[in-house]
Amino acid sequence: MASYSIIENFKTKTNQDFLDKAAALEPVLNKRVIQPKRIVRVEELPSHECIVHETTDAGTLSKQTFSKGDSMILDFGDHQVGYVSFTAAPIGNHYDAPAYLRVKFAEVPAELLEDSAAYDGWLSKSWIQEEYLHLDILPAAVAMPRRYAFRYMQIEVLDTSPKYALAFRNVSCDYVSAAEMDTVEPLGAKEEILNQMDRVSIKTLMDCMQSVFEDGVKRDKRLWLGDLRLQARANYVTFKNYDMVKRCLYLFAGMTFEDGRMGACFFHEPDFKVDDTYLMDYALFFCPALLDYYEASKDEETLRELYPQAIQQIDICLHTMLDDRYVVVDQRDAFWCFLDWGEGLNKQAGAQAVLIYAIRYGIRLAYLMGEPGKAQELENWMVRLKQAAVDVFWDEGQGMFVSGEERQVSWVTQVWMVLARVFDREKSRELMLHTMQVNPRIRMVTPYMYHHYMDALIRCGEEELALEEMKRYWGEMIRDGADTFWELYNPYNKYESPYGSSMVNSYCHAWSCTPTYLLRKFYRKNEKFRYLFE
Amino acid sequence: MASYSIIENFKTKTNQDFLDKAAALEPVLNKRVIQPKRIVRVEELPSHECIVHETTDAGTLSKQTFSKGDSMILDFGDHQVGYVSFTAAPIGNHYDAPAYLRVKFAEVPAELLEDSAAYDGWLSKSWIQEEYLHLDILPAAVAMPRRYAFRYMQIEVLDTSPKYALAFRNVSCDYVSAAEMDTVEPLGAKEEILNQMDRVSIKTLMDCMQSVFEDGVKRDKRLWLGDLRLQARANYVTFKNYDMVKRCLYLFAGMTFEDGRMGACFFHEPDFKVDDTYLMDYALFFCPALLDYYEASKDEETLRELYPQAIQQIDICLHTMLDDRYVVVDQRDAFWCFLDWGEGLNKQAGAQAVLIYAIRYGIRLAYLMGEPGKAQELENWMVRLKQAAVDVFWDEGQGMFVSGEERQVSWVTQVWMVLARVFDREKSRELMLHTMQVNPRIRMVTPYMYHHYMDALIRCGEEELALEEMKRYWGEMIRDGADTFWELYNPYNKYESPYGSSMVNSYCHAWSCTPTYLLRKFYRKNEKFRYLFE
Repeated sequence: MASYSIIENFKTKTNQDFLDKAAALEPVLNKRVIQPKRIVRVEELPSHECIVHETTDAGTLSKQTFSKGDSMILDFGDHQVGYVSFTAAPIGNHYDAPAYLRVKFAEVPAELLEDSAAYDGWLSKSWIQEEYLHLDILPAAVAMPRRYAFRYMQIEVLDTSPKYALAFRNVSCDYVSAAEMDTVEPLGAKEEILNQMDRVSIKTLMDCMQSVFEDGVKRDKRLWLGDLRLQARANYVTFKNYDMVKRCLYLFAGMTFEDGRMGACFFHEPDFKVDDTYLMDYALFFCPALLDYYEASKDEETLRELYPQAIQQIDICLHTMLDDRYVVVDQRDAFWCFLDWGEGLNKQAGAQAVLIYAIRYGIRLAYLMGEPGKAQELENWMVRLKQAAVDVFWDEGQGMFVSGEERQVSWVTQVWMVLARVFDREKSRELMLHTMQVNPRIRMVTPYMYHHYMDALIRCGEEELALEEMKRYWGEMIRDGADTFWELYNPYNKYESPYGSSMVNSYCHAWSCTPTYLLRKFYRKNEKFRYLFE
Repeated sequence: MASYSIIENFKTKTNQDFLDKAAALEPVLNKRVIQPKRIVRVEELPSHECIVHETTDAGTLSKQTFSKGDSMILDFGDHQVGYVSFTAAPIGNHYDAPAYLRVKFAEVPAELLEDSAAYDGWLSKSWIQEEYLHLDILPAAVAMPRRYAFRYMQIEVLDTSPKYALAFRNVSCDYVSAAEMDTVEPLGAKEEILNQMDRVSIKTLMDCMQSVFEDGVKRDKRLWLGDLRLQARANYVTFKNYDMVKRCLYLFAGMTFEDGRMGACFFHEPDFKVDDTYLMDYALFFCPALLDYYEASKDEETLRELYPQAIQQIDICLHTMLDDRYVVVDQRDAFWCFLDWGEGLNKQAGAQAVLIYAIRYGIRLAYLMGEPGKAQELENWMVRLKQAAVDVFWDEGQGMFVSGEERQVSWVTQVWMVLARVFDREKSRELMLHTMQVNPRIRMVTPYMYHHYMDALIRCGEEELALEEMKRYWGEMIRDGADTFWELYNPYNKYESPYGSSMVNSYCHAWSCTPTYLLRKFYRKNEKFRYLFE
């Protein structure tokens, strides 16, 4: 199902001072020159698994020549974000026609086997990283102007002429990021898979730290509030780049919908501009994002400046999105609340839970700001909303929360009700275990939602179980070849794409980078888990 | 049949002084900004004729918006050679994906109806004027870096996203040429078709006057000796740009095959380089090209400097390409002598005739240079070669010359035997008329060869007939929509392409520009044809 919002005559409210603050915090990107490591070929097994075979070391590339129809795949050894350049030299007699190339960039090998012309999904085909190049003058020093996200680069010679072939030399990538891997101390776990999950998390986060926290570096390339919250959390335990979080918080606060609602997404090119997409859960996450930032940075000025808008996001929901039972009105198929991708997921109960969750952070913010009256008001709302959640959504017979008119049982609803602390810790724990046992058909499909599942397990005391689940999910992704964590991963159907083709999936997607946060925050400094690190 | 030459370990001889002289004569190109005139659609009739319908004035373009799958064709009103720029602006809500465009340039409307992916001819598909563009930041000021030859520009929006469409503004072309149309006095004929043929000739020549005399501005884009000779002749009666001819003559003389043979073709980018293609007729044309230049420019220094190599081209043929009967050895299917495209044309007798033709110019050059001994030696050769031509190739029964072992009768052979003056003027005239009557199956297919046919008719006193034939050929091309004269035109099969697709045909090809030369040289100043101009 295509999911997007389009608002006619979209009107916004701007706080230029906030946008100026954000502009002043634009990071300088670090550059690093990366050379390809090897030349490979990609084989697809009947299972749809893609196997990469090394054919030769990349050092031999300059000795090879490529004629019409020839192609090769360069493996850069790891996920890259950057600008690629190469030299194409004519070999043979004087070239008597331009060279015509197709260059493809792929984060995962499967992308190379797909036919871009056949792509017909609902995401724009403009995201497919494929270029057609004419080289009129040879040798040509080609500096490709666009930024690509990739590990594999395929060059296909569509034509030269019978009089010459091409050699490719000096292929390299100027990798860019606002972060530096070296600044992060290794996790130091005994089990290598934990170290791997940590490293891949950090690499994912680093690749997505560009001018802002981008959600994906191949696709979207922009700032989403829900993603930002998780990126910031991973950042606090790794790169500790507070300025980038601050920049992003000021952006969301600096331009909102006319009525004060925060957009789910923010554009930063060519100018700062809020998207005309409101997602209730994403807007509400401004509260925890602000509190997290303050706790990590102790930056009181930012807390003070942005607090009113954080609270406003809650107030707007309380006053416009509830029915007279204190229950969030279900907007069904509209793109009104994200929670997770996943065909058919009903979001009513989950939205109720996120609102309760956000209020808890709002209460803490209000106390911090010396507004006990506001805090108390929010406390009262929280009680009412929790009671309504139980009254309307709890199904005693099934022992689970349901959602929507059809009383749908989903993983997502249970996880968010646990995170909202609708029940006490023990009953929440029972709910999680019961959910695992029942395994509702409406499953979680994104690492983003899996993060909240981990969070829910940990918060109700099931850290060991969370660790096992983490290994089963992110660990399995690594075993499936992830150099950076993917936007989408369904262990039950590893090769599906909700967009109709892996070519538009994002395979370095920051909302998937949270294992480093979970491992460093809840395990490494916890006496109970010293055995993992000694 | 694919026709090209590839010489392994090709060795050349360089006269750096000559190349430096050529470099110093590099022209400065004039630029002129051209805007599209109208928006059109193209319809193909069952006859394969393409009809162009105006849909609206180009001024309305900026008010139109284009979404995924939309396209439009801009008509620039005349043939252009230059650099195109435009602005693509997003219309709607903030763009949330790059724009992806296909831009096609076409000299004639038929090119727009062909599928580039289906092209499988022997010429490189890199000549097809089609680009795929990703625009990451919008609005985008797109300055396309390549030079295109076109009248029609098609922009197709391959994708945007549901959130925005595109508007295209400020589309324009920086037209470039070393020549200026305004400097040429109109022909002033009474019949408009003659003025049209003259104007289209001059436009063709002007478009092809770039850094050198290019053969075609869409395809090849380089200097061929046989084409240069005709371009220079048209130039002497129009733009009178002697320096460009001089530059090109010095190029051919400045780098040759190791044994002194001149290449048929010369590259000027990125450096000066002779092609590894030797065509006997093209090399021999250096003699008439030099004499023509001297007669037009009176530049004695160039004559003196280049004369030895002109004579050398004849000497090489006399000493390496004849059998003991003084007959040029038939190299059959090798790419050894051009004369004309045309399936199955045997070139032996034509090559003999071109050699005789070149010797006549060589004799005049030798006298000019005060070398009567050399002139006499060449006179002797001419007599021998003419006699051999009659002995070996004349078929009394058919009343025509034959060529090759299979004794092929072709138009080309007769035309060149007339231009070689193997017979006297009256017998040549009879031969031409007889040939027209018989109409041999092996016909002429290029305007280049048609020029020589016109020349032959005029030289044997059939100027009126030549004028009729010129109108039937170049005039018909104009009626078929030529804005500039085409590389190939077969009045018997107007929509054929020897390359498998019109997309790689060149529709502004300088070897077709000679009607202006013929009209101005043989008719306008001839008392006998005063009636055409008064």
